[in-house]
Amino acid sequence: MNVKFNHTMSLIDALNWRYAVKKMNGQPVEQDKVDQIIKAAQLAPTSSGLQPFKVIVITNQELKEQILPIAYNQSQVVDASHLLVFAAQDNYTEEGIDEVFDRMNTERGLPLDTTDAYKNQLKGTLLSRSAEENFHHAAKQAYLAFGIAIAEAALLKVDHTPMEGFNAQQLDELLGLDQKHLKSVTLLPLGNRDENGDWLVNLKKVRTPLNEFVIEYK
Amino acid sequence: MNVKFNHTMSLIDALNWRYAVKKMNGQPVEQDKVDQIIKAAQLAPTSSGLQPFKVIVITNQELKEQILPIAYNQSQVVDASHLLVFAAQDNYTEEGIDEVFDRMNTERGLPLDTTDAYKNQLKGTLLSRSAEENFHHAAKQAYLAFGIAIAEAALLKVDHTPMEGFNAQQLDELLGLDQKHLKSVTLLPLGNRDENGDWLVNLKKVRTPLNEFVIEYK
Repeated sequence: MNVKFNHTMSLIDALNWRYAVKKMNGQPVEQDKVDQIIKAAQLAPTSSGLQPFKVIVITNQELKEQILPIAYNQSQVVDASHLLVFAAQDNYTEEGIDEVFDRMNTERGLPLDTTDAYKNQLKGTLLSRSAEENFHHAAKQAYLAFGIAIAEAALLKVDHTPMEGFNAQQLDELLGLDQKHLKSVTLLPLGNRDENGDWLVNLKKVRTPLNEFVIEYK
Repeated sequence: MNVKFNHTMSLIDALNWRYAVKKMNGQPVEQDKVDQIIKAAQLAPTSSGLQPFKVIVITNQELKEQILPIAYNQSQVVDASHLLVFAAQDNYTEEGIDEVFDRMNTERGLPLDTTDAYKNQLKGTLLSRSAEENFHHAAKQAYLAFGIAIAEAALLKVDHTPMEGFNAQQLDELLGLDQKHLKSVTLLPLGNRDENGDWLVNLKKVRTPLNEFVIEYK
């Protein structure tokens, strides 16, 4: 994919511009911008390059309406043109790890066994852990990519709402994620703010002051 | 903080430029760029605005050398000019939640009880969970901010290495994080790549293809 949109502001300005939109106006986001946000998530670094998550892109209005009560009737779910669901693997598997390393070596023109020592050590670590522990680890990688997707959305001036407030089990059932060995972890509706209907739009962004947020060892 | 550095490339180009640097050359990163990376992490959205993590900035060379064996002798830890440690809260507390909402309302010029209904519901949810579950939740917020810090580093062309490979318990002991109710979750050494000494610098970046990474519901 070629980069279609360059940025007119710094990431700091973009992060100050963005906020968790509470009311969207139903106007669609350009598909090219959505593609660029997804591309940013795909390029996110992950632990050992495993990328143990998927991004689900929902534009089907009927399906968004079915998700609405699962997300406690937060209207952004239906007023967004694109509802992204970040879903992490429910565990690591030997086959999944092999696939990642095989693809890496193949694309780099290296023999498949180039990384065997590292890969076997990684398998020893991950496959001896509980599914729950591995899911938490996979979910953390999804959050990292979620952060990068949010950064890209802000840079492109695409309104969005990072959301944890939904019943993940119900959403997984609705989307049949169990069969794909995935569990939903976060939602990111993409749309356009409704400035008149949004109580949060004009409220000051508040953060922990830097002198409390940072601990320095000089 | 004013934004000092504007970006000369898109985030997609920046993410393609960056890689997990394996060998740094010991040259320092400008403090202003480090400040901008930390500022981006501070501006990251978090669940209910709780920001349940800190960024620890280590420039003390002696301390970096003590961390080297804890990070399995990965040389970036000592060759980086700034070693960032993302550390998440070990649990949520009533006092911590009150502090966040009090600051938010104060800075917005609103009565402190404005958000009581929401805050009490949030306390009901978080304070009934186990410390372990809350730590995982806090760590996920730290990963989101970690992703945004990585995006900012890439945009500023600051070399860095996202690292999970360290003994968190030993690092927590060394930094006395237990007393601060924090646990280290990731490292981000910031420095400059040593192009001649880094085996990874010229290898192709490989990612899950988009048609496998994305699941669409149209």
